[in-house]
Amino acid sequence: MKKNCIIAQSGGPTPAINASLAGVVKGLLDSGNFGEIYGSLRGITGTLKEDFISLSDLVKNDDSFLSRLYLTPAMYLGSCRHKLPDYNTDFGDYERLFKIFERNNIGAFFYIGGNDSMDTAAKLAEYGKKIGSDICFAGIPKTIDNDLVLTDHTPGYGSAAKFIATSMLEMAHDTYIYGIPSVTIVEIMGRDAGWLTAASVLARNEYNETPQLIYLPEVAFDEERFINDVNEKLSTHKNLIVAVSEGIRDKEGNYIAATKAKADKFGHAQLSGAGKVLEHVVKINIGVKCRSVELNIPQRCAGHISSKADLDEAMLLGYEAVKHVENGRSGFMTAIKRTSDNPYTYNIEAVDVSQVANAAKSVPLDWISPSGNDVTEEMIAYIKPLIQGEVALTYKDGLPEYLNISHLV
Amino acid sequence: MKKNCIIAQSGGPTPAINASLAGVVKGLLDSGNFGEIYGSLRGITGTLKEDFISLSDLVKNDDSFLSRLYLTPAMYLGSCRHKLPDYNTDFGDYERLFKIFERNNIGAFFYIGGNDSMDTAAKLAEYGKKIGSDICFAGIPKTIDNDLVLTDHTPGYGSAAKFIATSMLEMAHDTYIYGIPSVTIVEIMGRDAGWLTAASVLARNEYNETPQLIYLPEVAFDEERFINDVNEKLSTHKNLIVAVSEGIRDKEGNYIAATKAKADKFGHAQLSGAGKVLEHVVKINIGVKCRSVELNIPQRCAGHISSKADLDEAMLLGYEAVKHVENGRSGFMTAIKRTSDNPYTYNIEAVDVSQVANAAKSVPLDWISPSGNDVTEEMIAYIKPLIQGEVALTYKDGLPEYLNISHLV
Repeated sequence: MKKNCIIAQSGGPTPAINASLAGVVKGLLDSGNFGEIYGSLRGITGTLKEDFISLSDLVKNDDSFLSRLYLTPAMYLGSCRHKLPDYNTDFGDYERLFKIFERNNIGAFFYIGGNDSMDTAAKLAEYGKKIGSDICFAGIPKTIDNDLVLTDHTPGYGSAAKFIATSMLEMAHDTYIYGIPSVTIVEIMGRDAGWLTAASVLARNEYNETPQLIYLPEVAFDEERFINDVNEKLSTHKNLIVAVSEGIRDKEGNYIAATKAKADKFGHAQLSGAGKVLEHVVKINIGVKCRSVELNIPQRCAGHISSKADLDEAMLLGYEAVKHVENGRSGFMTAIKRTSDNPYTYNIEAVDVSQVANAAKSVPLDWISPSGNDVTEEMIAYIKPLIQGEVALTYKDGLPEYLNISHLV
Repeated sequence: MKKNCIIAQSGGPTPAINASLAGVVKGLLDSGNFGEIYGSLRGITGTLKEDFISLSDLVKNDDSFLSRLYLTPAMYLGSCRHKLPDYNTDFGDYERLFKIFERNNIGAFFYIGGNDSMDTAAKLAEYGKKIGSDICFAGIPKTIDNDLVLTDHTPGYGSAAKFIATSMLEMAHDTYIYGIPSVTIVEIMGRDAGWLTAASVLARNEYNETPQLIYLPEVAFDEERFINDVNEKLSTHKNLIVAVSEGIRDKEGNYIAATKAKADKFGHAQLSGAGKVLEHVVKINIGVKCRSVELNIPQRCAGHISSKADLDEAMLLGYEAVKHVENGRSGFMTAIKRTSDNPYTYNIEAVDVSQVANAAKSVPLDWISPSGNDVTEEMIAYIKPLIQGEVALTYKDGLPEYLNISHLV
């Protein structure tokens, strides 16, 4: 009797995580060595409750299911933020899960997510090994933050980067129309790593120099230096766009957003992100027209402007995970190993998932300009291949035709 | 000797205003009765300085100029916010302009813009008539706000509406992934009219009921009622999305944003838009997970998700303006007269531009639900045709290939 499989998704949404789900499903179907494919609703919490849907049936009943799943943003299976405890001291969840795996004749469990999810995959693989289970546990990376170690980059990052760069270019068109000096501060996601903010650099082209300034959380933010930077750029550029990470901190490690919010002692921390604070700084200290824009949630769900390169890689990372499982491997994460920037080439490999769990990758300091207000050519060469290609999205009534997610509503 | 023409753009940017510019240029070229086509840089202020570029040359030198212009967001010619004075008391600008028109052998002046720009077109036409000039002055409407009178809707609105509805649908996918109750407040542009916020309703489909609540500035906003609305919807829906206009006001006419900002006496008005204020209200009064998103500038420049219906109409409004000018008409604005919702049909007509100038059109109160927190089927039937169709944008290095605007930099 063929073994069944469970696939689950966890962490924050991306436009590419469902492409990885489609990749795993396609891998399992192409292999022919597996039975039922279950989708666990809302990550590992759904598995604990045996809250499954049959992905096998969905594919059987709808020829277009996988191709539409590939294009649908956020998590088709829902998500959770549930961390498994240490099995040495608290093994209740593990006993329960392995009973459920046994009852459902599970041979493999695929977890698509970020480093918290990789922690879950690692713990399950270790516990499974400890109790002599032959179930394979596989991790498939995703996060728009691009902060996972042991992989060149993470699926979801390229699509978020394409959205950010496109929006920055379009805002440049918006900005240039008036003949008066202006500063536009654009706040971009990334609390601890500057990968997403760095992607704004791709908006520069033969006619557009914006964003002229880019601030990442990897370098301590200095307000005086920022004011000087803006003044200096304004002396040669009429319209400035400044890309700033939500997570910029001063040299004491205090978030710029929080510092300023605390200062007014009214508990308005929720009212002032880094962009708003810097807008205020520019108005007070420079007195030029200034506005701030927070790109916000659309960065992680704008499926209509997904990067084809990104979705294809996401799918492949899921597909290849099945092959490793077929070879009996457990406790791994599929990863991208870049072999060349231009032409862009890469291999998919498997890395030890326990080494990915709970680790985080920052932007290398030598990819940030010495002045701390821009990124280098190495950074551009790194990001550029990841936003290439557009997806063939269909539209219905003028809107993207995504998969029905009423099972989550 | 054929007469030359000037085309100018003014007001705030839209993804469709360059399609109107392309339409005027194409109309003039197809007619064959006109000489040089000048683009006045930064609206009427460019004309006052004879700051022209030759659109004729740009078309001659680049076969793809018009098709790419059609797709490029914001103003290819730049913009201004310059209002002409009353010519009865201050005619300096007028004398100067008509001298410039004469010197450049101008036969027609086309102004693409909102109601301030229509004021300029109207005044120039009246002054021209007064001094016996035979120059024709034409207005072509644009504004994402959709608040011009005497036209069914305005170019730019459909594309902004498509961006808003698409983003709302994608944020619904983002919102549904967690199993915990949440409220997402989305602040949408429109200080005085709720047309853009109303467009969020199009995100609803067979699986998505969000936004469950929609608040427009046409109805006085009541905080108590809002809290009740949210509580009531939360009793039947786990994840709420609330669409709210930036311009909502209480029954005394005070902006919700400003009221709250004033309350803390720290001059932080710039820190709190309506969305942030309502986020705070929900957190304090309901205690559920809440976040706010301001769609901000991308609403008016996201050319990558333009509505084809919108760009086509924008182009046609420009094209048809030339025909009226050829018939010697001056002091008009081309306008859309809808003849049917479904199938959607319309005619282009010419209306008196002086009647459009400085007037504004609000959402009819009977298109807002009696509860004041939603819009009606009539509203949906009105907006739906305007977001139909996608544009065939080309991409270069992974980003939309817009026209080079280095002449504005």
